[in-house]
Amino acid sequence: MLFRPALLLLFFALPQATTHPSAPASDPSEMPSYTADGRLQPPANYREWIYLTSGIDMSYSSSANPSHSMFDNVFVNSSAYRSFLETGTWPDKTVLVLETRGAESPVSINKRGHTQSSEIMGAEVHVKDNSRGGWSFYSFDDNDKGALLPRTAPCYSCHEQHGAVDTTFVQFYPTLIGLAKSKGTLSPAYLKEIAPPASSK
Amino acid sequence: MLFRPALLLLFFALPQATTHPSAPASDPSEMPSYTADGRLQPPANYREWIYLTSGIDMSYSSSANPSHSMFDNVFVNSSAYRSFLETGTWPDKTVLVLETRGAESPVSINKRGHTQSSEIMGAEVHVKDNSRGGWSFYSFDDNDKGALLPRTAPCYSCHEQHGAVDTTFVQFYPTLIGLAKSKGTLSPAYLKEIAPPASSK
Repeated sequence: MLFRPALLLLFFALPQATTHPSAPASDPSEMPSYTADGRLQPPANYREWIYLTSGIDMSYSSSANPSHSMFDNVFVNSSAYRSFLETGTWPDKTVLVLETRGAESPVSINKRGHTQSSEIMGAEVHVKDNSRGGWSFYSFDDNDKGALLPRTAPCYSCHEQHGAVDTTFVQFYPTLIGLAKSKGTLSPAYLKEIAPPASSK
Repeated sequence: MLFRPALLLLFFALPQATTHPSAPASDPSEMPSYTADGRLQPPANYREWIYLTSGIDMSYSSSANPSHSMFDNVFVNSSAYRSFLETGTWPDKTVLVLETRGAESPVSINKRGHTQSSEIMGAEVHVKDNSRGGWSFYSFDDNDKGALLPRTAPCYSCHEQHGAVDTTFVQFYPTLIGLAKSKGTLSPAYLKEIAPPASSK
């Protein structure tokens, strides 16, 4: 595979905010749903939502050594995605699902690099629900229902301090970061992070 | 992230072939379209299709050394995906898109592992079109229209010899390989590949 980004821009332009003629405005199956005691129901069929990105072995600490390599895949409900294309930010009832899968090698005829495991190793869901105080994180690591992570958990402050758009890591979503820039929705914290250092006089 | 696959099976069961109530049976924008001289039009909005998997630095040769790390992401048109859920194999007019993106590090607050580049580094499309002789590969590496790869190209024989389902690498699609197994659509070549070695008597 050759490195020819200029030509490939023709293949893949920025996503357009044209409404899909048959797409429902907001599919009820994509909306967040809760148990009576406030846990999040597992989002059904999120693998059929809009894919945003994958990473491998991501860490906010350069010193961490993973015991095994892992992919993470991120999906968002399609109504929130379409709203983002129009506005550059997330609407109420946005649901972002992060699933983690093992990075395997070798598998079948693949001899190098990594492919993804059939098993899911972990899952976390980030929900914007204004009827429940805005953005919340739910972990599915210990249960089939999502446990609300307390507001004091470091994921909240980290996302607030570093998220490119509305406390989310849009800087890692290749098809959305340029759109957020063009819409002027990048957070002050992120704009400060990417600003060139002030020249010393 | 802890390693608890047993619990997470509750979070993510096998995809079901229940028809989406509002989904179009076959969206015209998802169908393959060609130029007068037989090149493939770039699939519009394939990033809004069904995501199948990502890999990193995959190679069929263990000796190859990549000059730079690359992710590949695979998408399929949603009507073909829904047909696969029902039948375990691909229908006519299946379009599989493989895009390649750079694996970057560090980016923003990510200090380790890799995230995906905004730029696309390459793209290849695998189309099943019975009006054009079945499966064909089109490369977008050199042009904004897909060039048909000749039938003598090694990708054809490799996919025929190793593809788990209908000459496609379903063995690398985590949510589909188990379904193909349960539907009995695994190829003879793949079944032979995964068969335990015959015991010597």
